[in-house]
Amino acid sequence: MSAGHRMKLSSFEAVQRKYKAIFLDSFGVIKNAHGIIEGVVESVKHMRSLDKEIIILTNDSSRSPKELAANFHRLGLELVDEEDIISSGMMARAFLRNKIKKGTIVYVGTPGSSFYVQGLGRPTVPINDLDIDQIEEVSALVFLDDEGFEWQTHINKCVNLLRLKSIPVIVANTDNTYPVSTREVNIATGAIARMVEKISKKKFIYFGKPDSQMFIYAYERLSKKIRVERNEILMVGDTLRTDIMGGNKFGMSTALVLSGNTSETQMRTYIKSTGIIPNYICPSIAID
Amino acid sequence: MSAGHRMKLSSFEAVQRKYKAIFLDSFGVIKNAHGIIEGVVESVKHMRSLDKEIIILTNDSSRSPKELAANFHRLGLELVDEEDIISSGMMARAFLRNKIKKGTIVYVGTPGSSFYVQGLGRPTVPINDLDIDQIEEVSALVFLDDEGFEWQTHINKCVNLLRLKSIPVIVANTDNTYPVSTREVNIATGAIARMVEKISKKKFIYFGKPDSQMFIYAYERLSKKIRVERNEILMVGDTLRTDIMGGNKFGMSTALVLSGNTSETQMRTYIKSTGIIPNYICPSIAID
Amino acid sequence: MSAGHRMKLSSFEAVQRKYKAIFLDSFGVIKNAHGIIEGVVESVKHMRSLDKEIIILTNDSSRSPKELAANFHRLGLELVDEEDIISSGMMARAFLRNKIKKGTIVYVGTPGSSFYVQGLGRPTVPINDLDIDQIEEVSALVFLDDEGFEWQTHINKCVNLLRLKSIPVIVANTDNTYPVSTREVNIATGAIARMVEKISKKKFIYFGKPDSQMFIYAYERLSKKIRVERNEILMVGDTLRTDIMGGNKFGMSTALVLSGNTSETQMRTYIKSTGIIPNYICPSIAID
Amino acid sequence: MSAGHRMKLSSFEAVQRKYKAIFLDSFGVIKNAHGIIEGVVESVKHMRSLDKEIIILTNDSSRSPKELAANFHRLGLELVDEEDIISSGMMARAFLRNKIKKGTIVYVGTPGSSFYVQGLGRPTVPINDLDIDQIEEVSALVFLDDEGFEWQTHINKCVNLLRLKSIPVIVANTDNTYPVSTREVNIATGAIARMVEKISKKKFIYFGKPDSQMFIYAYERLSKKIRVERNEILMVGDTLRTDIMGGNKFGMSTALVLSGNTSETQMRTYIKSTGIIPNYICPSIAID
Repeated sequence: MSAGHRMKLSSFEAVQRKYKAIFLDSFGVIKNAHGIIEGVVESVKHMRSLDKEIIILTNDSSRSPKELAANFHRLGLELVDEEDIISSGMMARAFLRNKIKKGTIVYVGTPGSSFYVQGLGRPTVPINDLDIDQIEEVSALVFLDDEGFEWQTHINKCVNLLRLKSIPVIVANTDNTYPVSTREVNIATGAIARMVEKISKKKFIYFGKPDSQMFIYAYERLSKKIRVERNEILMVGDTLRTDIMGGNKFGMSTALVLSGNTSETQMRTYIKSTGIIPNYICPSIAID
Repeated sequence: MSAGHRMKLSSFEAVQRKYKAIFLDSFGVIKNAHGIIEGVVESVKHMRSLDKEIIILTNDSSRSPKELAANFHRLGLELVDEEDIISSGMMARAFLRNKIKKGTIVYVGTPGSSFYVQGLGRPTVPINDLDIDQIEEVSALVFLDDEGFEWQTHINKCVNLLRLKSIPVIVANTDNTYPVSTREVNIATGAIARMVEKISKKKFIYFGKPDSQMFIYAYERLSKKIRVERNEILMVGDTLRTDIMGGNKFGMSTALVLSGNTSETQMRTYIKSTGIIPNYICPSIAID
Repeated sequence: MSAGHRMKLSSFEAVQRKYKAIFLDSFGVIKNAHGIIEGVVESVKHMRSLDKEIIILTNDSSRSPKELAANFHRLGLELVDEEDIISSGMMARAFLRNKIKKGTIVYVGTPGSSFYVQGLGRPTVPINDLDIDQIEEVSALVFLDDEGFEWQTHINKCVNLLRLKSIPVIVANTDNTYPVSTREVNIATGAIARMVEKISKKKFIYFGKPDSQMFIYAYERLSKKIRVERNEILMVGDTLRTDIMGGNKFGMSTALVLSGNTSETQMRTYIKSTGIIPNYICPSIAID
Repeated sequence: MSAGHRMKLSSFEAVQRKYKAIFLDSFGVIKNAHGIIEGVVESVKHMRSLDKEIIILTNDSSRSPKELAANFHRLGLELVDEEDIISSGMMARAFLRNKIKKGTIVYVGTPGSSFYVQGLGRPTVPINDLDIDQIEEVSALVFLDDEGFEWQTHINKCVNLLRLKSIPVIVANTDNTYPVSTREVNIATGAIARMVEKISKKKFIYFGKPDSQMFIYAYERLSKKIRVERNEILMVGDTLRTDIMGGNKFGMSTALVLSGNTSETQMRTYIKSTGIIPNYICPSIAID
């Protein structure tokens, strides 16, 4: 991990051979808003043929793991199942189950994302339906997804809810952006939540990479299947601040791919200016 | 300026008597989204009768000073004219005139706010009309107002514009929020710009309180009319971080009013936790 | 977890009865710079008599767990052993073992703290002995303790090292301060590292509360001894940002004690202004 | 101001010809810890021969303008007098005179730097001599210089003073670092103050570039001598965040020199990653 020689691109096929297990970020690595990224279906098939263990580690809490898997299948990526997917929403859900024992949970996101707050024995209300004059029962605010609500109206409503009531705020996705194409990104839940946090002068509770929690959860799940050391796992992601920082910290090897948030031109500037150094840089996980 | 004894409320009528000139913030002091705040028309009339100089110092760049004055008149506040109003947009406009000598200026805000970017000899385009695939000519991005655009679509467009092109970004309003009622606030341009800045990892150029520039501009304008020292001026505002910090730093006396962003219950917590200490705290500028 | 009713003080004796296991922060809970805090020896004896499991979870990386235990014994607290202590230094050490495979490790701290970088098969050099003109071999910088070096000379040397060489920086203690008495605190390693990080415009890798890693490590160690759910554990700490935030996030109950970093007068302001809400607030862990 | 073509180096001699007045930062432009930077004496003489107005705009508050000038003379730079020098300390001093009307001023810095707090009719105490148990009279804390005190002892004392008493904190130098040689920097007062601010959770009052205040003060002084527009002035500095950001914002042209805080290799990364774009980049102000 020193910044010098690693600025050159490696072949993902060659890199993955060195590891027993591959942890893959989803957005920007496997898919973007247009579908499965080119070459990914073949690459996953190839890794499966080499008996690599694959776990998808995503800050995407817009759908349940079951729905995320179904979506992969619809898009043509068959070899990934529900139990191969770990989302930050799962961590947030475990927290809510443990800590929010009364009152109503207000969430920000799509109906699909509400999976992570439902079935916990607490009533839930989407921010869209919250009457700001009826907040006595509200006991928590949860940011799940950047869609499913009208930004101007409902982000303002979040700010006012937190002015009127001191409640825990849980963020199920720490990301700032997610890629919609090779050229463009969208703002993700994490950045919206941080804006509200800063305005509200509170401390929100964030779940997802780069925090160790998801990596440990994935490592434990993997350890039940195979005997593996942390340095035998490769974490692959398109974002330095979350995937690579988190993977480095957890003691895994890390590969930055340029198929999502981080472009080749940005890569050099970002790595140098942040000091977050991946072990490898690959154009994408496609095998050429 | 020590936090102890100043936590009690003073009568604004008694406070303003000690000063030759009164600088007033607009949103939360004079008006909110529902109109002129109760008692303000009488208070301004009273100060005028005592020959107090009044200057309105606002981070509101949603309209030109002329339009801001016309709006005050429509709402029933007659004794404030165009030349009594200094907006942060005027500072941003001077910067643009000096520094952006070519290309097209893209702005974020209402048609009314576009006053601050027009007539500078440069073509202007609202973010709504920008084609992200046609950005060769764009030479600056200017945040003017929190309205006039669809947040989700166009804040995302700002992020992508800055990913694709390295240009100066000018923010004509540093505020995080502005009050719409005694109970609720709206997110202001400043907070939106800071979110985009953080995502983009750039440094934007901010105009408006608490920076000294507007205070100096107002002080110079005042000095052409009357002979006055800084400590003979009272800065009145509803926001600690901008009005009170800026006024304190410029060497004026400061009065926090509780008719806007800062409520009485928040006030104690905020002053203690930030250490930004106003000379006086008044319920509002109304004279009882 | 809502801020209202919990602002009153509880008896620690009554609180701990509800839990199978008690996780204790060290500085400000068990000891301060003057020795063991009053009543702590009796309280630990009492909890042991009730068969409570006790684990000490500390961001103090100034000594090895063995030395920390020996120090407790010297100070008169006998009922705590090496295996009851988990320090953030242990997390940092595991990272270094996994990720720093070559070169020399430079550390900032006392000889006692160097335990966490030694025995890893890599040469180590205290910042005091580093020749800034001989840094070819340096492969990592590790912040361990706020003592053992001359601040002005050697913090400056850290800044220059990072200007000259892009290497990973590991911080074994995220704390801003630690209490030396009921009245005063000292600046801790975390705050020093964050100053250097900000100046250097890099991203450092932090270990310790509030990150989930130490909580998970402690929970796993505990689970090997007894069958326990997260909500059957009480995390006790004197710092909202680390102990209480981390404990809340991990799904444990939390108790803030006022015997260290946070005084009773600060407590109300901090909880309200941050929104980090402990389940209980106790004067200390002493049983009266 | 777009990042593209300006990444190439210009000759300072050619650049300065285009302007009526040149504003020069001091540390890293005129001098470093080893003395006057090579070629500067000749360059200043050359600009004087062309009748350029020269003002030195420095965040260095370690000495009075008179002492700063005397020091230049001792080092061999004769053509700069006291009235050509404007320091951020002068701004801080004006604030203290206006706003701190009672009590004792505690300062952090050398005896030389104490010029900025003395003669204001208030007793002053260096942090070294403050008895933390005798703080009833203390009404303000002022950060002046990074030398003149023992860092560990006295920065800790600042933190404890602010824990015990809520008073305004004034920072007379916003800089993070200053160059001691072409290779090394020292941490400056601004970075120390920001660390204390963050630990204390207060808002300090900062004076110096990039705030507009010093630029306006300098512009007014200049306007009394010659008729000049802002865009006829060149601001020359070695630091993007202060000199170039401040100069750009004030509407002047800006030149980054590589003889101080910013090296040629860092320059490209910093400009791209921050978006703070100078009009020119020159190796130094030396004329070749």
